Amino acid sequence: MSDSKKKLLDCVNYPSDIKNMSYEELDVLSEEIRELLIDTISKNGGHLASNLGVVELTIAMHKVFDTPKDQFVFDVGHQSYTHKILTGRKDRFSTIRQENGLSGYPKQAESEHDAFVAGHSSTSISVANGIAKAKSMLKDDGHVVAVIGDGALTGGLAYEGMNNAGRSGDRLIVILNDNEMSISKNVGGLAKYLSKIRSNPKYFRLKNNLEHFLRKIPLVGKGACRFLRHTKEIIKSAIYHTTFFEEFGFVYIGPVDGHDIQQLVRALRRAKRINKPVMVHVETTKGKGYEYAEKRPTEYHGVPKFDIDTGNPDVSSTDSFSSVFGDTLCELAQVDDRICAITAAMGEGTGLKNYAKAFKKRYFDVGIAEAHATAFAAGLASKGALPVFAVYSSFLQRAYDQLIHDCAIESEHVVFAIDRAGIVGDDGETHQGLFDVPFLSTVPGMTVYSPGNYDELKIALKKCLYVEKGPCALRYPRGSQPHYPTGFETNPSDEYTLVAENESDILLVTYGRIYTEAAEAVQKLRQEGKDVHLLKLNKILPLSSEVIDIVSGYNTVMFAEESYKTGSLSQIMADILLERGYNGRYISRTINGFVKQATVKSAIKTVGLDSTSIKNWIEINNFTEE
Amino acid sequence: MSDSKKKLLDCVNYPSDIKNMSYEELDVLSEEIRELLIDTISKNGGHLASNLGVVELTIAMHKVFDTPKDQFVFDVGHQSYTHKILTGRKDRFSTIRQENGLSGYPKQAESEHDAFVAGHSSTSISVANGIAKAKSMLKDDGHVVAVIGDGALTGGLAYEGMNNAGRSGDRLIVILNDNEMSISKNVGGLAKYLSKIRSNPKYFRLKNNLEHFLRKIPLVGKGACRFLRHTKEIIKSAIYHTTFFEEFGFVYIGPVDGHDIQQLVRALRRAKRINKPVMVHVETTKGKGYEYAEKRPTEYHGVPKFDIDTGNPDVSSTDSFSSVFGDTLCELAQVDDRICAITAAMGEGTGLKNYAKAFKKRYFDVGIAEAHATAFAAGLASKGALPVFAVYSSFLQRAYDQLIHDCAIESEHVVFAIDRAGIVGDDGETHQGLFDVPFLSTVPGMTVYSPGNYDELKIALKKCLYVEKGPCALRYPRGSQPHYPTGFETNPSDEYTLVAENESDILLVTYGRIYTEAAEAVQKLRQEGKDVHLLKLNKILPLSSEVIDIVSGYNTVMFAEESYKTGSLSQIMADILLERGYNGRYISRTINGFVKQATVKSAIKTVGLDSTSIKNWIEINNFTEE
Repeated sequence: MSDSKKKLLDCVNYPSDIKNMSYEELDVLSEEIRELLIDTISKNGGHLASNLGVVELTIAMHKVFDTPKDQFVFDVGHQSYTHKILTGRKDRFSTIRQENGLSGYPKQAESEHDAFVAGHSSTSISVANGIAKAKSMLKDDGHVVAVIGDGALTGGLAYEGMNNAGRSGDRLIVILNDNEMSISKNVGGLAKYLSKIRSNPKYFRLKNNLEHFLRKIPLVGKGACRFLRHTKEIIKSAIYHTTFFEEFGFVYIGPVDGHDIQQLVRALRRAKRINKPVMVHVETTKGKGYEYAEKRPTEYHGVPKFDIDTGNPDVSSTDSFSSVFGDTLCELAQVDDRICAITAAMGEGTGLKNYAKAFKKRYFDVGIAEAHATAFAAGLASKGALPVFAVYSSFLQRAYDQLIHDCAIESEHVVFAIDRAGIVGDDGETHQGLFDVPFLSTVPGMTVYSPGNYDELKIALKKCLYVEKGPCALRYPRGSQPHYPTGFETNPSDEYTLVAENESDILLVTYGRIYTEAAEAVQKLRQEGKDVHLLKLNKILPLSSEVIDIVSGYNTVMFAEESYKTGSLSQIMADILLERGYNGRYISRTINGFVKQATVKSAIKTVGLDSTSIKNWIEINNFTEE
Repeated sequence: MSDSKKKLLDCVNYPSDIKNMSYEELDVLSEEIRELLIDTISKNGGHLASNLGVVELTIAMHKVFDTPKDQFVFDVGHQSYTHKILTGRKDRFSTIRQENGLSGYPKQAESEHDAFVAGHSSTSISVANGIAKAKSMLKDDGHVVAVIGDGALTGGLAYEGMNNAGRSGDRLIVILNDNEMSISKNVGGLAKYLSKIRSNPKYFRLKNNLEHFLRKIPLVGKGACRFLRHTKEIIKSAIYHTTFFEEFGFVYIGPVDGHDIQQLVRALRRAKRINKPVMVHVETTKGKGYEYAEKRPTEYHGVPKFDIDTGNPDVSSTDSFSSVFGDTLCELAQVDDRICAITAAMGEGTGLKNYAKAFKKRYFDVGIAEAHATAFAAGLASKGALPVFAVYSSFLQRAYDQLIHDCAIESEHVVFAIDRAGIVGDDGETHQGLFDVPFLSTVPGMTVYSPGNYDELKIALKKCLYVEKGPCALRYPRGSQPHYPTGFETNPSDEYTLVAENESDILLVTYGRIYTEAAEAVQKLRQEGKDVHLLKLNKILPLSSEVIDIVSGYNTVMFAEESYKTGSLSQIMADILLERGYNGRYISRTINGFVKQATVKSAIKTVGLDSTSIKNWIEINNFTEE
């Protein structure tokens, strides 16, 4: 990177700075932005491939439209880095995804140039539909542009959005960022269809000529006449039918080369002039401009820090709860061919990479479609298959109705392997897994395990498959296992573990990842001669009467839990205790709102669930004078 | 109805009984089944129009397929009456939708001929996809047939299902029951598309001839040649493109006349022979054979008892929480043009009929698409509009992620008017509104009102629109308001009402519909000189410290709540009380599982929330000797 000579990017801080640049200059700017992206993401980690793919597109958008008057709604939002660089946040860009830094996603709170929050997939068309409708209601003549990847189109919400936005009649532009990928390789009928358009743009150009041509066909002769009449009819149908998107009421423009700014600007200007919903189909290359990312876009979708020259992002270098889950499922599937695994476009993230290779016919990547995955699993279960749906905690929120309606009512035996349960770190609010215990607990008959290390996870998976009935889940955090301090080891097959060395009338209750923090806290307290008993839950739902009996025996119960407060296990336990007439002290520490981006370690500290905070919390409540 | 002469239906109990009937006999049978449907539903109420529409289709299905080996998955399931009559349940058909009677929906628990539970829309393709996959995994050569209405196709889950089932390669038949209606008139791009097919079936027949014809076109001559080459290309595209469904990987058959059994049987036999996913497009008339229902299918979708001759179903004869909500919204919209109303195909049910007429441009029926409705509303709110999404409690479950992701994270001011909150009666498990308090309470920053009568509803709506910030909801039951006994009236604008006549250290807490039952119980107790104070909550979330202070002052707190137990308000209150060191008695009565069909009155009695049960409950816990 030539830091010596002055860069164009140095004089670019706001969209206004690029309006008058020549296309040659904009191409140079694109390369400079790419350098900045690669450089920054190599240090901070982040969504590399998706951002490298939309540099030219974002520049073209800002050349044609004027934010914040015009509004961009980025689907998922992980591709908004260039947008941030061009809208007054270049100087803080080095802080992206870091504590107190820029978010890796759009946030209204962060900038007036960010129209709407994102993080989850497939919401942008619906949101843009709402914004466009409000604009037309409130007589605001600004434009609304949604940017959605082809992968996000596998989500039913995107389809609901198209179905409604298309017929809204409002001025609305949807840019389909088609990179033939969602997070992993894209799937489904729509994907096939898009590649068909890509492979045959000629057909769409042809249409226009033909429409003109047809008006002139003379209908004379006999057989010829009949043939032509047929033909004309068919051609009309062909023209009438045209693209999937036009069926929904969109004017279709494309496909456009997503790395040719001039072509993009032309297409966007044309779209801007049309006073109804428009779909601009843009073809981009994920990872564009960084060879390693172009070659392995999936690995480079979201990456930790990596070395620019070797391009080694060091992904899956260490084992993790995800990989241990995947390996265990492989072992089990080897001997039980009823087992099948389902993922919603998160095969890699959920550790199913090897399983997918080994059990092609029993591996189902349904695209970004969690509700379908759950209903599909329920159907499989109803016929005696053993479906395991591996899904991130925050994404399972999208299948809440299917949990109740399709799994719980007739008690279908579906296993949910819930990854990224609890705090996930630098992705921030949209991705934190803080709600799974609260919403799973409202599903009648749902069993939940929350293993704290690999051995507990392995056994919990087996129990969910072979011991438990009906819908059941095992939830585990992002990353690799912590190590239990000596004296705090558990028997991984036990539903709970009580660590009680000396006498104490204080009980600390916890589960999952926080157990290690709690154990360290208790260990330190012991060293200071302050005795506290520690109850670690492994099977957390339903709460057994055995556990309640133990807890009831203490004068002071303190519950440390990595979950949103309302609906938390500590709340459920409090209710049971109070109704049973427990009249000791009950003190809980949970999470009482959305958690901002930070490293997992730091975020856990911020919510007071690290060992030091837990120790202080126990001391203040039990071992302070007066 | 000629009950005198012997009927064909008398000798029909199982599918085997119709296999050898002639088409003439089957037509007669259809009419007899229609009589039975109209007769029974006129007595029990139920889904009339949808069932009258599929009599011939269901007969054809049972003639061609063999349940339970072959499996039918009915979407929503309210159209399964004929199926029930033909599968061993004719004799109990008079009990449909009654307590301990047949369910109005398919239930595996009810019959081996019911493949899967239904009640909510758009799940059938996903479920059938799962069943078909299990069959191919487990080497079961039975067929799977999903029956889905065009209305259900407006739900994103159906699209996710098509996108995956289409490419599964499994043998799977989806019957599209196209009646140009969902529950109310159908909406969206897809609806337009379907009507296009209907209007032009010729095109699809033409295709086959042409494919053959094309192979023979000689490419000679000059202009002609060029023209023909173009033409041929276009025609190929036309043929290649063909229908929406083929894009998803389905073989398309149709459209077929849904009231011509012979045509239906032919189409289904053809579909049965194809070893991949097939979409059979069937056109039916909702309400077929009953003049009143054909003319006003929406009113006859789900009806109470009605008079067969006048056809008067007496819908909306009395006012209801729904109608009062609708009228109040009309008044407010009159003076505030930022207000807009959203419904997910439930305009009538949610009381928006008049609003829809009066405010066409600010009324949005998005189809059966609750997730879209919520994200759309969030988009509207972000621009300063005042969106009100009127939705049934059990259907809002489908938008859980949008509540958190699109409404809560950036605190968009969306108002949710949650109808059918609590027990709904004869629709049973799938439709009970028992989970909204549990799942709404897990959404950070969500405000919830639970009015108990019309006046409270009116003011709650105004407060949600003009006083509260961020996402907020008002929830109210099905049906009309109860009347508060004298001495138990409330000031509808108060957040809570404490009824305390004489001294008492017993407090009964409740909210919503149950308040009236509780008041009657307390009234009776008073007459027996047993004093109990009564706290009625109006704003239930968040729980105010004021309320907690009041509750803390009693030695005995009893909480009667029409909600699923886990996540209930009584549980939230118990947690707060226990952590505040409350050491009195706390006894709650909530609902601890799914609630079966019965009248609302009877179901409330069954769960012990009627006045008599509440009175006994209080007495047993407080006023019994020893």
